[in-house]
Amino acid sequence: MFKLLIALSALVVISSAYGPAVRATKGEVWPKLQQEEKTSDYFIVRPFTFRFQGLADIGCPRLLDDAFTRYWLIIATEASLEHRGRRAEMGKKRTKFWQLDESFLGYLKRLKVEVSDKCTDDALPDFGDNENYTLTVNASVSTLSAQTIWGALRGLETFSQLIYLEQDALVINATTITDFPRFSFRGLHLDTSRHFLPVNIILQTLDGMAYNKFNVFHWHLTDDQSFPYKSRVYPELSEKGAYHPVSKVFEPSDIAKVIEYARVRGIRVIPEFDTPGHTSSWGASHPELLTTCYSNNQPNGNLGPMDPSKDTTYDFINNLFTEVVGVFPDSYFHIGGDEVDFSCWQSNPDITTFMSDNNISSYEGLENYFIQHVVDLLDKLNSKYLVWEEVFVNGVTLPNTTLVHVWRGEGFDTLRDVTKAGKYGVFSSCWYLDHLSSGSDWQKFYECEPLNFDGTDEQKKLVLGGEACMWTESVNEYNVMPRVWPRACATAEKLWSAESVNDFGAARPRLEEHVCRLNLRGIAAQPPNGPGVCL
Amino acid sequence: MFKLLIALSALVVISSAYGPAVRATKGEVWPKLQQEEKTSDYFIVRPFTFRFQGLADIGCPRLLDDAFTRYWLIIATEASLEHRGRRAEMGKKRTKFWQLDESFLGYLKRLKVEVSDKCTDDALPDFGDNENYTLTVNASVSTLSAQTIWGALRGLETFSQLIYLEQDALVINATTITDFPRFSFRGLHLDTSRHFLPVNIILQTLDGMAYNKFNVFHWHLTDDQSFPYKSRVYPELSEKGAYHPVSKVFEPSDIAKVIEYARVRGIRVIPEFDTPGHTSSWGASHPELLTTCYSNNQPNGNLGPMDPSKDTTYDFINNLFTEVVGVFPDSYFHIGGDEVDFSCWQSNPDITTFMSDNNISSYEGLENYFIQHVVDLLDKLNSKYLVWEEVFVNGVTLPNTTLVHVWRGEGFDTLRDVTKAGKYGVFSSCWYLDHLSSGSDWQKFYECEPLNFDGTDEQKKLVLGGEACMWTESVNEYNVMPRVWPRACATAEKLWSAESVNDFGAARPRLEEHVCRLNLRGIAAQPPNGPGVCL
Repeated sequence: MFKLLIALSALVVISSAYGPAVRATKGEVWPKLQQEEKTSDYFIVRPFTFRFQGLADIGCPRLLDDAFTRYWLIIATEASLEHRGRRAEMGKKRTKFWQLDESFLGYLKRLKVEVSDKCTDDALPDFGDNENYTLTVNASVSTLSAQTIWGALRGLETFSQLIYLEQDALVINATTITDFPRFSFRGLHLDTSRHFLPVNIILQTLDGMAYNKFNVFHWHLTDDQSFPYKSRVYPELSEKGAYHPVSKVFEPSDIAKVIEYARVRGIRVIPEFDTPGHTSSWGASHPELLTTCYSNNQPNGNLGPMDPSKDTTYDFINNLFTEVVGVFPDSYFHIGGDEVDFSCWQSNPDITTFMSDNNISSYEGLENYFIQHVVDLLDKLNSKYLVWEEVFVNGVTLPNTTLVHVWRGEGFDTLRDVTKAGKYGVFSSCWYLDHLSSGSDWQKFYECEPLNFDGTDEQKKLVLGGEACMWTESVNEYNVMPRVWPRACATAEKLWSAESVNDFGAARPRLEEHVCRLNLRGIAAQPPNGPGVCL
Repeated sequence: MFKLLIALSALVVISSAYGPAVRATKGEVWPKLQQEEKTSDYFIVRPFTFRFQGLADIGCPRLLDDAFTRYWLIIATEASLEHRGRRAEMGKKRTKFWQLDESFLGYLKRLKVEVSDKCTDDALPDFGDNENYTLTVNASVSTLSAQTIWGALRGLETFSQLIYLEQDALVINATTITDFPRFSFRGLHLDTSRHFLPVNIILQTLDGMAYNKFNVFHWHLTDDQSFPYKSRVYPELSEKGAYHPVSKVFEPSDIAKVIEYARVRGIRVIPEFDTPGHTSSWGASHPELLTTCYSNNQPNGNLGPMDPSKDTTYDFINNLFTEVVGVFPDSYFHIGGDEVDFSCWQSNPDITTFMSDNNISSYEGLENYFIQHVVDLLDKLNSKYLVWEEVFVNGVTLPNTTLVHVWRGEGFDTLRDVTKAGKYGVFSSCWYLDHLSSGSDWQKFYECEPLNFDGTDEQKKLVLGGEACMWTESVNEYNVMPRVWPRACATAEKLWSAESVNDFGAARPRLEEHVCRLNLRGIAAQPPNGPGVCL
């Protein structure tokens, strides 16, 4: 009977109109593993006799214990009476189906977790961390091995996903896994300026990221519409520039909470303070930072991008960014640089004079001048940076540590040019979550291959990964979770799994399972595949 | 200062990129009132000294008291410390700004609610109810008058929306209102078959409907994918046909709760049991109801629409619908009739013989034969019915009490034909909430005028209204609320307000306010207009 169930679950799409459009898999992992050998033999997991075991001398016992607690709770929830009750057939007698089953290998009692590199409890995930792991479920005491704590976290996520409910028992098949990410930079971008999002939504987002092996949270903190970051050196920025000076700001304690919550899940937090455009909200408290726009040789009452002609602009940025680099421990900072509107600079006679005095002959050159100041400052602060692609396209001189964030159009020509110039690329063009269409629109995200550009192998190695971007013009706390999930899961799989994992049809039943898994874990994911149900 | 605020609120769109894309109005009502005279003079509402007062001899004291409680709680929530705190400026001293303001008319102490028609506490809203009311806020004891209890409920909704928070006080401007709906049938359709939706989500949906003066909840209970309705006469329908026999069914008590919750809000509940197509889930327990499909003169394992050739099919429907008409007290029943696939009928030799024996020469004629049986049954049960447009288009004989539900294409030609034939029309073509696009896509719903077809005044009177339709292929309990709200608000205004209320730009600031109002009342509405904030 149980073998029959396994055989049936291989049938992917039900032909009849009755029932779900796509039948969910059981115990398949999202994103798809690099190498997996799975048998139909299985262990039973009983949460109250199962435990994780870390090596005593690992060096970061709290990081590991914290992860053990999280994953034990996930497993226990999966096995909870409530959850089992939702699946139980009415009046059906529960039997220990495995007891007479020759595929039953025993009860899984322990998962030993081995980490070979020493770590510390305050370790930070960073650029280029090794996230590889091997997981062998073959005995009542099985083993997860990783070089780093971050690889161990990825392996624990995988382990938790291998377990599934069969009747009222948790089952894990005997499995041998070798897994590693295809790309080292796997990001989710969230805009908290167009709509403010409360911290608990950001924490839920980080949970969802961990469940999809994302490792970079790109926090687009500020933009034209609002400035929710509460600065210590310039508190007036959020007092006047946030949507509300108290209820719509991120206090230092909020930011610390987000960074720590992410860190223990192996997720970096990269802040973005976009300049010199997208800065109207800075002008609410500091209009002198912005360029006065002119019409008919008169100021017209509008303010444009930051004023690159004043030393005071750079002094201000210096003070603020020095604080920000201290607040966010990541080695990278996203300095924006997208969509700078040149018309206001062009209208302003002081800017014209400044350009002439400094032999700057184009507005791209002026932008270059501005960004160069920001870049020099970050160099001085020992921070590396990401920039939106315009900074590269407009010819700003950038060191080779810079990550160029490609987002416009299809992006492939830009990726080609960026990597040809020896710069790193991060790709987002086809993963804009604010672009909506009816039905299973994650197909478009899924069928996008970031290396689909004309370039050498060396160039392709310079593409570090990508980001799904959630711009929040039409998103608030009530729809952000189902808008991001499961659509960002498509990006997660493109960035983690092998290039050959590109079959939408084959991915559908796995995503059907994964969405139910996310729902069970408290992530408000929407349906991926049409009519369906999570039991 | 206060007058200045009122003047500013008339400025609709902020020119700077800083702040919300559209500034919300204050105390504007959605859907737009038919006639309103509002002054800048105002009263202050203090929840703990304000009360509603109904006439003692009205006949339905519980209906009215229940509404008073609901609306008093809404007002008290609006005035709550938490809500005021969210709006308060940091460190700003609170002043009774009205005390020296010449526009201050006093404290609003009572709203007297007069209903001229007698009612009873078990009254049911019905087709053609008078929903008119007048509301005059002109003295500390002001008056709401309506002919019916249902009109009074609409007036109470309006009254609650007129009140807005100014600093930390609730304000209501002196206002004289005469209001009535343009269309008598204002529906929201919800599909609980493609995804099961829990009862609490349906109750939230009914709340949202009341806040938008919808008066018909069209409950698309069953479809191909699942049969969540728990029948007393045929419990096996949901035992086998629901996504889960216990957790994904609507028990009789659930249905009673929905009907009662809707009733006290003046909302009718019209159930739909779609036949003869969209019935695969019936076949899970009763395959004999469905047509056996053939390929190469052999049954091919598939089942098609209901089998119209067997008397037992009609006996079954008779028993089930007799129950359903008893469960749902509304005078109307939606019997479906859409998208019948003729190919299976065509393939089946028994159907061919049956048609020949009964001189039925076309599959439309066969559908007619089927529907005629259902229609005769409902006539016998004294129930009237809605049908999807195909039933009309395919030439089924229908009495003039039938409502023909137009949904395909632009719909205007069909509305013309339906009304030319003297039938009532209900319009949904441009209000399919499952059709998605990026940004403020309620514009498309808003700019759709149901009477925009070529017909006489008499024909246009036959259009009773319309419905926004939420098909749930891609919608589950996590995204249904933000997907419906505020997009269905566009439909609500088209159906309640005057035809001349058709300016999207003018509607935007009112919807900005209304979405924040819905959020405050617990409805998870998404942003309507781009970047913004609810304070």
